[in-house]
This record gives sequence, C-alpha cells and structure tokens, in this order.
Amino acid sequence: MFISFEGIDGSGKSTQARLLADALRAEGHEVVLTREPGGSRGAEDIRRLLVEGPPDRWSPETELLLFTAARRDHLERLIRPALDRGAWVVTDRFADSTRVYQGAARGAEQARLSDLVESLHRLVIGVEPDRTLVIDLDPAEALARATGRGTEAEDRYESMGLGFQLRLRAGFHDLARRHPARVRLIDGSGAAATVAARVRQALAAP
Amino acid sequence: MFISFEGIDGSGKSTQARLLADALRAEGHEVVLTREPGGSRGAEDIRRLLVEGPPDRWSPETELLLFTAARRDHLERLIRPALDRGAWVVTDRFADSTRVYQGAARGAEQARLSDLVESLHRLVIGVEPDRTLVIDLDPAEALARATGRGTEAEDRYESMGLGFQLRLRAGFHDLARRHPARVRLIDGSGAAATVAARVRQALAAP
Repeated sequence: MFISFEGIDGSGKSTQARLLADALRAEGHEVVLTREPGGSRGAEDIRRLLVEGPPDRWSPETELLLFTAARRDHLERLIRPALDRGAWVVTDRFADSTRVYQGAARGAEQARLSDLVESLHRLVIGVEPDRTLVIDLDPAEALARATGRGTEAEDRYESMGLGFQLRLRAGFHDLARRHPARVRLIDGSGAAATVAARVRQALAAP
Repeated sequence: MFISFEGIDGSGKSTQARLLADALRAEGHEVVLTREPGGSRGAEDIRRLLVEGPPDRWSPETELLLFTAARRDHLERLIRPALDRGAWVVTDRFADSTRVYQGAARGAEQARLSDLVESLHRLVIGVEPDRTLVIDLDPAEALARATGRGTEAEDRYESMGLGFQLRLRAGFHDLARRHPARVRLIDGSGAAATVAARVRQALAAP
C-alpha cells in the first residue's frame, strides 16, 4: 500500500505519518517512511534548491519543474522499488500538495499554472497513492503549532500567513470531495494518539 | 536578435559564440553572451546538479525536467529581459541540444523520451532562437580537441565516445534539414577566424 499524508503546516501530518509507520512495523510490515519534497538522495538535493534562498528565487513555473523533478526521482528511486518488493510506503506529502498549494495562489498565477500542474503530473508522474489522509485542523491552531515548533517556521508558506492557510484548507476539503474513494479527511484536533486512532479507522474503512 | 550556437563537444561553438559577441560589441551593440545548462544564477545552481556526481545520478526523465527547469529560469531571468531592452543574446547551446542529445540515445530510451522532450518544451519554453548556428566538424577531430582541452573532458557525453558523437552530428544535420530558415550548418574546420567569417556570412544571409 502507498499512503500519503497531507494537510496544512502544523496540522500534525508528519507526526501521524511517523505513528502510522511505527504501528505498521509493530505488526511486522516493512515500511518506508518518507517525505516530499525530497525522500531520495537526488530529490533531497533538489529540495535544498527549493527551500533555501529568498522566496522569489524561482518563478512559479521553475519551482513547479523542480518539484516535479524531485517527485520523479523519489518515485523511481525509492517509492516504486519499495512497493515492488511488497513494502508499505508512507509519505509526508505527495502530488496533492502541489495541486493544493498552487491552487491557493491568487489570480493570474493560479489560472496560468493549473493546467501546467496536471500536464506535468500526467507526463512524468502518473500515479496516485492508494489512500491519502488529510489531517484537517483549524488554521489558527495549526499556525500556532507550526510557529511554536520553530524548525521550519521560516518556510515560505508559513510566512504567507493565516489567509493563505485558510485557502489551503479549503483546497484540501475540495480535494477530498473530488476523490472520495482515495482521499479521507481526518479530524486533526486532540492528542496525537487520538488522531492516530482516527487514521487507523479511516484506513480500515472500505 | 536571439542567436544560439550548437554542435558536438569540441566543435568550437563556445569559441565562435565568444567571437560573435566580441564582433557585435565592437559594432556598438549590447550583447549578452550566455550558455546552457546555466546562464542565470538559478540555472547555474541547477547546472551543478546536472554536471556533478556519477553519470547515473539522474534518470533520463529527471534529467530532462532539471534541464527544462534551468532553461525556464535562464529564459525568464536573463534572455527575455535582455531581448526586451533591445540587446543581442548569444547563447552556447539552447533547446536544440536537448533534442539532439536525447535523439542520439539508443533504442527504448529514445522512443520513450522523444514526445516528452517536445511536450515539456511546448509547455514551459515555447520559444526558439531567431537563428541557430551549428558548428559542424568531423567527430574524430572534435573529440581530439575536446580531450585536449581537458576542463570538461569528464563530461558524460564525451565519455560516451566517438559512436555517440557520430549520432549527435547526424542529429544536428537532421535539425538543419528540418528547420532550414532558422538553423544553419557552418563548416567548423580551419582557423577560428575563418570559421567566424563563415558565421557572419550565415547571419547576413536571408
């Protein structure tokens, strides 16, 4: 099974990805826990180009090409080989992040890029996770968590503030509505263990 | 005018790009002399990912996405602004290099990638130089020059040897045949000044 976790920054998705990987391993499965952008050696090298430097280092189109290059490497070098040998793959973000973050951009940029996002996905990625779990949390609460956490608080998306996070959340809700079989919305409020139980329930559901 | 120089390694195209830039400057034009992969700050950062590391660091598809990301940055940040202010742009390689190098690959890889090359170009690049000068030289002579030069003799294409260079040359000839108005084949044999005179003649021709 190929599982992705999605959600706004501070939603707890990284914690939930780790908890699911731990639980599956405890049941005897081989699990590859990974993340995007990055996840494979080459993709991590591309990730550094994406997360370092000033926010305007790349145009939206160049950034999208770099995300796609990193995803292709991640897919070829880590995800596919793991799935082929029967392992579970649990990833913190995948292609839906690109769709939703791009969709939350404003005006002309969004209109210009929406076709490009899907064209690139179709050309060089072409796969979706078997199940996608969106950890859903009120952006005000998630933003407080993300800022408190510190480590990646410089992240360009977090720096775009609450209005942007609200548009992202709406994007993830829309994604779940459009792909009900694959994408499940998980209530991200409460203790991590409580949310983890909701995740297991969602995975067990048909 | 937007001018690209193309050709196999050791053909003398970099020298000819520089000589043309010098001559145009002597006539009072503003000239931006550049190269691919690279040419702009971001594209040079991507270039390092492409030229460093082992030959199998990237799959052909990931490599193609990285080349395209670098080209998009180069186009947006350097080429377009220069053309918009009326400067000449002279570049050592552009999109034709991607087409011809990919076309010289063998068998399954070539078949798989040929559509992808054109799809990516159409999606995010979409422009061609006003004139493309292919510096044409016997691969045996060009390879001797490239190896003697040393600096980039580690280049993965050069390491593929004479057979690969022969396929590249055939690819450049084919390019010139398919785009006679834009692409001109220049005899690259003889002294640099002799070849430079042929270049000026080709640019003056309708």
